[in-house]
Amino acid sequence: MPYALGLDFGTESARALLVDVRDGREVATAVHPFPYGVVDERLPGTGAALPPDWALQDADDYWACMETIVPTVLQEARVAPEDVVGIGVDFTACTLIPVRADGSPLSRDPALRRLPHAWGKLWKHHGAQLEADEINALASERGEGFLLHYGGKTSSEWLLAKAWNLLREAPDLYREAAHLVEAGDWVVWQLTGNLVRSACQAGYKGMWSREDGYPTREFLAALDPALADLEAEKLSGEVLPVGARAGELTEASAARLGLRAGTPVAVSIIDAHAGVPAAGVSGPGKMLLILGTSGCHLILGEENKSFEGIAGVVQDGILPGYFGYEAGQPATGDILAWYTRHGVPAPLQEEAGRRGVSVHQLLAQRAGKLRPGETGLLALDWWNGNRSVLMDAELSGVLIGLTLDTRAEDIYRALIEGTAFGTRMILENFARNGVETEEIIAAGGLAERNELLMQIYADVTGRPIRVARSSQACALGAAILGAVAAGASQGGYDDLELAVARMGGVKERVYQPDPAAHATYTRLFTEWVRLHDYLGRGENNVLKTLRTLRLGST
Amino acid sequence: MPYALGLDFGTESARALLVDVRDGREVATAVHPFPYGVVDERLPGTGAALPPDWALQDADDYWACMETIVPTVLQEARVAPEDVVGIGVDFTACTLIPVRADGSPLSRDPALRRLPHAWGKLWKHHGAQLEADEINALASERGEGFLLHYGGKTSSEWLLAKAWNLLREAPDLYREAAHLVEAGDWVVWQLTGNLVRSACQAGYKGMWSREDGYPTREFLAALDPALADLEAEKLSGEVLPVGARAGELTEASAARLGLRAGTPVAVSIIDAHAGVPAAGVSGPGKMLLILGTSGCHLILGEENKSFEGIAGVVQDGILPGYFGYEAGQPATGDILAWYTRHGVPAPLQEEAGRRGVSVHQLLAQRAGKLRPGETGLLALDWWNGNRSVLMDAELSGVLIGLTLDTRAEDIYRALIEGTAFGTRMILENFARNGVETEEIIAAGGLAERNELLMQIYADVTGRPIRVARSSQACALGAAILGAVAAGASQGGYDDLELAVARMGGVKERVYQPDPAAHATYTRLFTEWVRLHDYLGRGENNVLKTLRTLRLGST
Repeated sequence: MPYALGLDFGTESARALLVDVRDGREVATAVHPFPYGVVDERLPGTGAALPPDWALQDADDYWACMETIVPTVLQEARVAPEDVVGIGVDFTACTLIPVRADGSPLSRDPALRRLPHAWGKLWKHHGAQLEADEINALASERGEGFLLHYGGKTSSEWLLAKAWNLLREAPDLYREAAHLVEAGDWVVWQLTGNLVRSACQAGYKGMWSREDGYPTREFLAALDPALADLEAEKLSGEVLPVGARAGELTEASAARLGLRAGTPVAVSIIDAHAGVPAAGVSGPGKMLLILGTSGCHLILGEENKSFEGIAGVVQDGILPGYFGYEAGQPATGDILAWYTRHGVPAPLQEEAGRRGVSVHQLLAQRAGKLRPGETGLLALDWWNGNRSVLMDAELSGVLIGLTLDTRAEDIYRALIEGTAFGTRMILENFARNGVETEEIIAAGGLAERNELLMQIYADVTGRPIRVARSSQACALGAAILGAVAAGASQGGYDDLELAVARMGGVKERVYQPDPAAHATYTRLFTEWVRLHDYLGRGENNVLKTLRTLRLGST
Repeated sequence: MPYALGLDFGTESARALLVDVRDGREVATAVHPFPYGVVDERLPGTGAALPPDWALQDADDYWACMETIVPTVLQEARVAPEDVVGIGVDFTACTLIPVRADGSPLSRDPALRRLPHAWGKLWKHHGAQLEADEINALASERGEGFLLHYGGKTSSEWLLAKAWNLLREAPDLYREAAHLVEAGDWVVWQLTGNLVRSACQAGYKGMWSREDGYPTREFLAALDPALADLEAEKLSGEVLPVGARAGELTEASAARLGLRAGTPVAVSIIDAHAGVPAAGVSGPGKMLLILGTSGCHLILGEENKSFEGIAGVVQDGILPGYFGYEAGQPATGDILAWYTRHGVPAPLQEEAGRRGVSVHQLLAQRAGKLRPGETGLLALDWWNGNRSVLMDAELSGVLIGLTLDTRAEDIYRALIEGTAFGTRMILENFARNGVETEEIIAAGGLAERNELLMQIYADVTGRPIRVARSSQACALGAAILGAVAAGASQGGYDDLELAVARMGGVKERVYQPDPAAHATYTRLFTEWVRLHDYLGRGENNVLKTLRTLRLGST
């Protein structure tokens, strides 16, 4: 019986998921935290303090985890190595590792390990803000075409900013590195011996596109002459579409993991994006909405369109043959967590304790009894800025309509509604630009736990919402790509659509939009958009002024 | 040694304060709750449920209280009846009592007592909203001049709305009443045997003015033909300025209270307004700011000006010889109370408990460490609507600038700042119209307890703030008016200014505005005004729409 193995690398830990290729049944899973975790305070070994906003990882942690979790799942499911027909890998991105020509991370070298820049930079490392600002300014000034794929703005989290920052702050290490590699591609390289790059990471985080490749030598030279040959010097490796085979497991790797040498390995994918096939999505019309601390919106399109408010559009970046569109909200669950932590009064907390429910549950129970509009409140969900469609990290949250009768459950519901309006804005923006959403598939912690939130999202967007079947959607998505890498002749699938249909999918329950609620929310959404535009598009920049005063500048 | 007696009638209780006429020293005080309190649920005797928003009182409760508290203070201070040279009365308003020709309240009649409309209507009785709406609509349509004295709008709490509502809902009782009397005037009548009306109540609540008298017969007839002769039929009694003598204590009243017959009694005054002389204010330039659950702003002017945003302007209404201006904020302390009750998280509440301080104190301690602007927040203080300058009860509160780093003390401080900006708006509105405020004298619970709030008010307004010396400012103000009613020849004062200088006054401490803080707040205030105008003056009516949806209308 054929099984596919998904290897899912998150921020804090790695997970292995063994899946029945025929029906996607999950037969075993194992998780192991990265031994060094997220290195964001002091550098191990030296104890040197790191600058604020830094976040490093030790690439050898990825091996340490794999050596534990892969044998565990095989053993637990009593599956023979021969029955594992394909392997897929998903990873956070851009998590960038400087490595030698043989693939060994610079941080493995005892002489370099005491240098923070020798370590991998985790996706949320924010040490390259200065570089990102300069990249954006110059690209905008020169009218660089790649900006169009990212809604007009690139991030300090991405490859180019991180690479340039390394060059500037540690030029010796930059020279020492034969390659700068996304961690997902590095794991695939370790497994197969082949350095190939995923179109997903390269496209969403490396400013690469199928048509134009990476940013031009001219642009890079204008940024910094020493950066001109970045592609030739540091980014070698063919960019392959998601769904392709990167290679086969080497003898050495197979031995370390207890698998069979020659097992096909898929091109890697970003963790969130792996949720798309896992949720049963294999073509346009269905949006995957990942609801965790933040919100991520992924949808496939037939055409390449560039428009305001997308975090990225990448050909073959999510599934082969499609343009993958990404948008996002920088805080969803985080806003609710903030509220339950800093805004819920003691009596409510006590009642939750007495009744043995969480504060979230108690608030959801009460808020669920309110009809749309009954709170009298309206919230702009910008507690952590706005990603789509305004791409403005300096915005902040707004709550209006407060009265002496406003209660905690009113605010809780208004905050949920505010994030739902943010998602509707993204949906409508996509639709205006020809990328239609007929149905939403939700995944992530909030989607599984918060039924009130799911119903409000259905009512606000007017779309039916289903929840991804697997609570380990990223790992399942990786496994599906592993099965496709294997191909039908080796026990997997040739056709990705078929693999998705068989192995991915949703739970039975459908959150259907209630027409009356949707009508009320549409009226509220009109108000929301008006306030959104007024405070977010420069007519009234009060939120920027407040930020300036808060930070103490004048 | 001469003493003056202040009788202060609040919402729930009456207070007697015996004051040394020479220096305002308070020698004894006594409080007694009204036996029937505020009758707002069921009618005593019948148990009949009252409509929502009703609030009645039994006028005989005022006698019951006086018979307790007056003898108590005399006894406690060991003051002989002969040494009480004058009596003053302050009262909530418009608290309206239907009485027979002899002054006996209709509710004293056992045959009528079972009828709710026979009882006194407390100031906060809101059963006459319909009448107020019609009064405003017709007055506005006809361009009635009196509207100008009230910022263009009159209230359901006022005399005309209450009288008309009585006529409509209980025409028999309306006929049965020989007079409709403000409770303050009724108490003075009871004491002296003279039915005189205070220019304060008549002016602020009866739409009376020295120049034009009450609303015209024509206007009243247009409202309702049966109301045409309201003045002649129900409002007899000369309107006298505050500071005048209403008469002398009758033998009967003197006997009931243990005082000397013939003791001079002053014309009554509204409770809040009595704070003006108590705070040492006897002329223009100093604003009395009463900070309790709501905020009330009183200031004297030399000229009669009508402009937007005043709750009332009345000649001789606060002190004789001046035009008394009133403005207000419908919630100040109420907003902070709402927040500490419904918005302060459990850990903070626990810390307050552990440290033996109130939540207010803990929040104030933490908020006091923040510099102006540091919260990143801005609040429009409309939790209970806006009185001045917008006169719009349908507005609601706004809080912007929220981030995941926002903490309870940030919000607490922003709420205080929001109410301070509301006060600055009122000050600047007065100043634009020629009524200048050079200094603020604060009174009320918040002014005495919340030092952080006082400093923020000073910094926001750029005015020094002192706090009224007496924590029983209303009763002290009444006593001062009693001393003036007595006159110098009978042991009091002929000159009100002198009486105020000797008997009223402020505490030593001055809250001086900090120039740097004031500059930052001026920058924030510019933003506040812009948002205030945008959301409050009709450009964006989203708050009205939210209210409509909240109330379930469509």
